[in-house]
Amino acid sequence: MMVSMTKESSFPSAQSDPIARQQELHGTIETRLKVPLNPENLAAFYTPGVAQVSSRLADRPEEASTLTIKHNSLAVISDGSAVLGLGNVGPYGALPVMEGKAMLFKALAGINAWPLVLDTQDTEAIVAAVKAVAPVFGAINLEDISAPRCYEIEDRLQAELDIPVMHDDQHATAIIALAGLINAFKVVGKDLKTARIAIVGAGASASGLLRLLVDFGVRDVVMVDSKGIVEPSRTNLDPYKQRWAKLGNSRHLKGGVANAMKGAHAVIGLTVPGSFTADHVRSMANDPIVFTLANPTPEIMPAAANAAGAAVIATGRSDFPNQINNVLVFPGLFRGLIDAGVPKVSSAIKLRAAMALADLVPNPSADRIVPSVFDESVAPAVAASVVGAKL
Amino acid sequence: MMVSMTKESSFPSAQSDPIARQQELHGTIETRLKVPLNPENLAAFYTPGVAQVSSRLADRPEEASTLTIKHNSLAVISDGSAVLGLGNVGPYGALPVMEGKAMLFKALAGINAWPLVLDTQDTEAIVAAVKAVAPVFGAINLEDISAPRCYEIEDRLQAELDIPVMHDDQHATAIIALAGLINAFKVVGKDLKTARIAIVGAGASASGLLRLLVDFGVRDVVMVDSKGIVEPSRTNLDPYKQRWAKLGNSRHLKGGVANAMKGAHAVIGLTVPGSFTADHVRSMANDPIVFTLANPTPEIMPAAANAAGAAVIATGRSDFPNQINNVLVFPGLFRGLIDAGVPKVSSAIKLRAAMALADLVPNPSADRIVPSVFDESVAPAVAASVVGAKL
Repeated sequence: MMVSMTKESSFPSAQSDPIARQQELHGTIETRLKVPLNPENLAAFYTPGVAQVSSRLADRPEEASTLTIKHNSLAVISDGSAVLGLGNVGPYGALPVMEGKAMLFKALAGINAWPLVLDTQDTEAIVAAVKAVAPVFGAINLEDISAPRCYEIEDRLQAELDIPVMHDDQHATAIIALAGLINAFKVVGKDLKTARIAIVGAGASASGLLRLLVDFGVRDVVMVDSKGIVEPSRTNLDPYKQRWAKLGNSRHLKGGVANAMKGAHAVIGLTVPGSFTADHVRSMANDPIVFTLANPTPEIMPAAANAAGAAVIATGRSDFPNQINNVLVFPGLFRGLIDAGVPKVSSAIKLRAAMALADLVPNPSADRIVPSVFDESVAPAVAASVVGAKL
Repeated sequence: MMVSMTKESSFPSAQSDPIARQQELHGTIETRLKVPLNPENLAAFYTPGVAQVSSRLADRPEEASTLTIKHNSLAVISDGSAVLGLGNVGPYGALPVMEGKAMLFKALAGINAWPLVLDTQDTEAIVAAVKAVAPVFGAINLEDISAPRCYEIEDRLQAELDIPVMHDDQHATAIIALAGLINAFKVVGKDLKTARIAIVGAGASASGLLRLLVDFGVRDVVMVDSKGIVEPSRTNLDPYKQRWAKLGNSRHLKGGVANAMKGAHAVIGLTVPGSFTADHVRSMANDPIVFTLANPTPEIMPAAANAAGAAVIATGRSDFPNQINNVLVFPGLFRGLIDAGVPKVSSAIKLRAAMALADLVPNPSADRIVPSVFDESVAPAVAASVVGAKL
């Protein structure tokens, strides 16, 4: 029996084991020619015709957005420092995830995304490398880069490049979480802007949500890291957390998770399992909203949150209702940014995307506050929201 | 009439004008999913399955060559400093050429090549950027980088990376030129290794050919730059030309093109139109071999070389016989390097590739010394030559 079991785990079915499947597939994306390689196309698109296009671009580099793949290409960039729930797995560990992102960009939004995982975790080297390769791309999607480096890297690249740069983990999760909150508050019949909100966790996604909620108009929102509420009297905050400490928190709360969640109308967990409990949920306002988004294991399991009185529950998982998944955001958002030639992702764009996503669920209920990841209307609606248009 | 002509040149036919065609096509390559995006594949190749693959690669990064697109991907890298005959057109000017290379890699050798044009022409910055993005790629093809920077960039990258790095301009042109010379010498019934050879030009391709001819066993070969034969008594040579000056030149020739070509059995022009003349050809040995490879305008036009007595003539152009085109080399060579897991391009590999290309023309004649670029047996034969195998 032992031998047989060993064999099974050493030679898993190609139908079910992800590693065995990749041993056959060797990655999930490939390149393809847009036109067949025949003498006519070779002459037009390679020699001698390409010399005309190259000369034109030497004089007018801005036409690369029309005359080259820059028109519709995006780099998915990671240094592998904060991948999924796995942590710092390095560039090779990050590569299959970035390939998956590239798949989603193409399948859901028609964008030619190419993964670039970087053999450095030095901020200066990352900024230099991304700037160096930027001429090929119409947009830059930063992925799975750890805080607080992710803030400086995004800020610097966005300031120094003339194409949109977005750190997915900071903003895409925040956008779909805000969409979910908008609808969850409709379900419980309360006003999000005047509500009390607790964010448990203070990483990239948590700080992105804090900033977006404040931009949306929420005033009573606090963020809690492992040492307590991020607020100005704390002496152990990095420069970025010092910045976030000045946002929201209209009641000037201090202390830990218990203080943050007591009387809150909604809690959003963006950290690790066990960081808040059923007792914390019971201390919230009536009909509390509980987003427990740690993945794959939520901060509190939905059944426990439900037993503690939660009125609306969302997770990051596909096997429970209300999956808060950033794939609802990034393909469509970048589609819209590229199509509109927007050089920078603004707060207004993020808020419009969140509202567009919320609007895709016209009659939200406790079990349905966000659209499905297989809903084909999502990416076009998010893309249209970039320029403020409705489909 | 004037108005009509102006209109025609302002609104050229999409069928014939390369710029108009690119305004419609927006570049020549795109990405494609290898598998359809359905729930089963999403689970296997993205979440949750990807976590297993990522964890495996965090522990065993060397398996990226099996489990990711690194298996069959190549970066076509240029800084735009020496593009075609156009010169320093910068990264945007270079991009359509690199897209064309990527097309050829895919169509002729099945390699997923992605162009990366760099927004820097600083050697250190180029080396750093390429090293940073290298984890995604199974090979690096450097393209259209000016001499002498191209030598240091190639040497450093090959020394510091564990994947093959080749500067196409130095080596691919040299390999197909050597193949052509092997067969041209058969046509005139002479021995290449004991022949007198003059290379006019001293850029990347010329120095690559000099080194390859010396490695092949040719002793009496000289290279001529704009100031004369590159030889050790010269005081105006950069460090790389000082190195090339020590190669070949068994007769210790000095002076200019006239001295280099007088009595030579073959001349290979890799420089600019007019750099040698019919009189120079007439000064060569009987039945001289004339490769006039400047593009699009040869050093000397084939008709003039023929009138001056040339027995075999080759150009870089498709509209004359004997096109010496590096597309005969790079797709198959990289196919072979990737398939064999060869971490470095050796001199032996280049020589085997040249001999394999020569062998594809079993009965060479004055009008046929190299295979056609549309001969589908070329890339497989070159690929097989990497490991010394015959197809």
